[in-house]
Amino acid sequence: MFIESRQNQRVKRWKKLHKKKYRDQEQSFLVEGWHLIEEVLNSDWTPQELIVLEGIEYPTIWERYPIYTVTQAVFDEVSQTESHQGVLAVVSQNESDHKPTYHKLLLIDSVQDPGNLGTIIRSAVAFNIDAVVVGQDSVDLYNDKVVRSTQGALFHLPIIRDELSRWLDYCHNHNIKVYGTALDEQALSLSQVQPSEKYAVIVGNEGSGVSETLLNSADETVYIPIATKSESLNVGVATSIVLYHFSQAT
Amino acid sequence: MFIESRQNQRVKRWKKLHKKKYRDQEQSFLVEGWHLIEEVLNSDWTPQELIVLEGIEYPTIWERYPIYTVTQAVFDEVSQTESHQGVLAVVSQNESDHKPTYHKLLLIDSVQDPGNLGTIIRSAVAFNIDAVVVGQDSVDLYNDKVVRSTQGALFHLPIIRDELSRWLDYCHNHNIKVYGTALDEQALSLSQVQPSEKYAVIVGNEGSGVSETLLNSADETVYIPIATKSESLNVGVATSIVLYHFSQAT
Repeated sequence: MFIESRQNQRVKRWKKLHKKKYRDQEQSFLVEGWHLIEEVLNSDWTPQELIVLEGIEYPTIWERYPIYTVTQAVFDEVSQTESHQGVLAVVSQNESDHKPTYHKLLLIDSVQDPGNLGTIIRSAVAFNIDAVVVGQDSVDLYNDKVVRSTQGALFHLPIIRDELSRWLDYCHNHNIKVYGTALDEQALSLSQVQPSEKYAVIVGNEGSGVSETLLNSADETVYIPIATKSESLNVGVATSIVLYHFSQAT
Repeated sequence: MFIESRQNQRVKRWKKLHKKKYRDQEQSFLVEGWHLIEEVLNSDWTPQELIVLEGIEYPTIWERYPIYTVTQAVFDEVSQTESHQGVLAVVSQNESDHKPTYHKLLLIDSVQDPGNLGTIIRSAVAFNIDAVVVGQDSVDLYNDKVVRSTQGALFHLPIIRDELSRWLDYCHNHNIKVYGTALDEQALSLSQVQPSEKYAVIVGNEGSGVSETLLNSADETVYIPIATKSESLNVGVATSIVLYHFSQAT
């Protein structure tokens, strides 16, 4: 179908997906660019609609889904990137609510920067985490910058949005040892940690780290030793180092 | 001094610092926000001028430097952030061109994303790198987003902008072992690397990694093992994991 008017109801609906409120309501979100759309198609996530700028050729396999060809003006209206590639998808949110036996979990508490959350999810896939739980104070998982920063990793592991405290209970009930990451040297130095086979790692806010309540519920707290002249690490970096260490040790 | 006109010559000069060409010509750059300015003041970098939005109070210690109070309209013209804090500094570029005896070097080849370059510099300080060399194909070191992502780490170690090949010669002449980071498993797995006491790590472009010429000049190539369903790590993350491992091992 060809759409040339920005006033088209469908265009208005797509544009609304820029906002979290509407993404939650529609249980869907936008995915932009060739690479990310390919990642969706190679996963168990489902594209509802594909949006293509007129004149752009797309693989025939895309024709399994409803395709809308649109004018430059319409595309610009829906796109959220500065230099777009002329392809967009509306994708259904696909959160896991069932709880199979996860053995390696990452719990994310109040990460605010979209790039950081995306990077963390990307590293979680790289280092064999079974599922990621994103707490309710974090930036929205379906924010366009989060999706972009995951580089598609988002589509390759179960992600749950939930109260983290419920998942601490889950861990305790399933004999999964919980490691909180701390910013100070009161904790155990990462290199001294020999993780158990089943583990959960909690990471926290850019400024304040993991909330005290959650840290107190952890079985152990760990920190990454850094130079005294250094204030801290980026949270995406710190998380990735911990996950790397754990993936090596188990 | 109070400045209220956006047409003021000084304002025009400040605004030109948004562009690399002019930053290079003036050998200076803009630094924004309380935290970063404090970091400059606590380092051996020199603020030339401080720019303060009218009504904002600043520490008396700032009066050691020329201070310009400006109107909201002028501040908005010079600021490069969406939600600014009303304080800016013009800082002299402060690259090291002398070569003291560096033992731990990080060589950066064609990193394009400002956030990635900033994060890498932040981790270099955290993991005791003596100096960072930024090759000529990377994003500009004094780009505002790079400066912001370093969180001030930029001011706490020597940074050199130079041809990387010259620094490979430097390493060979100073008995510093050079480790290239590779994207494939042909290389040595990071955990198997027992770094020598003096080392240089080369990291590369987001998409293509370290250029082949540089990799061929490295003494060893290393990679970080990741899950097969994962395509790659963020370059800031990968660099930080390597630097962490090296800092632990030496």
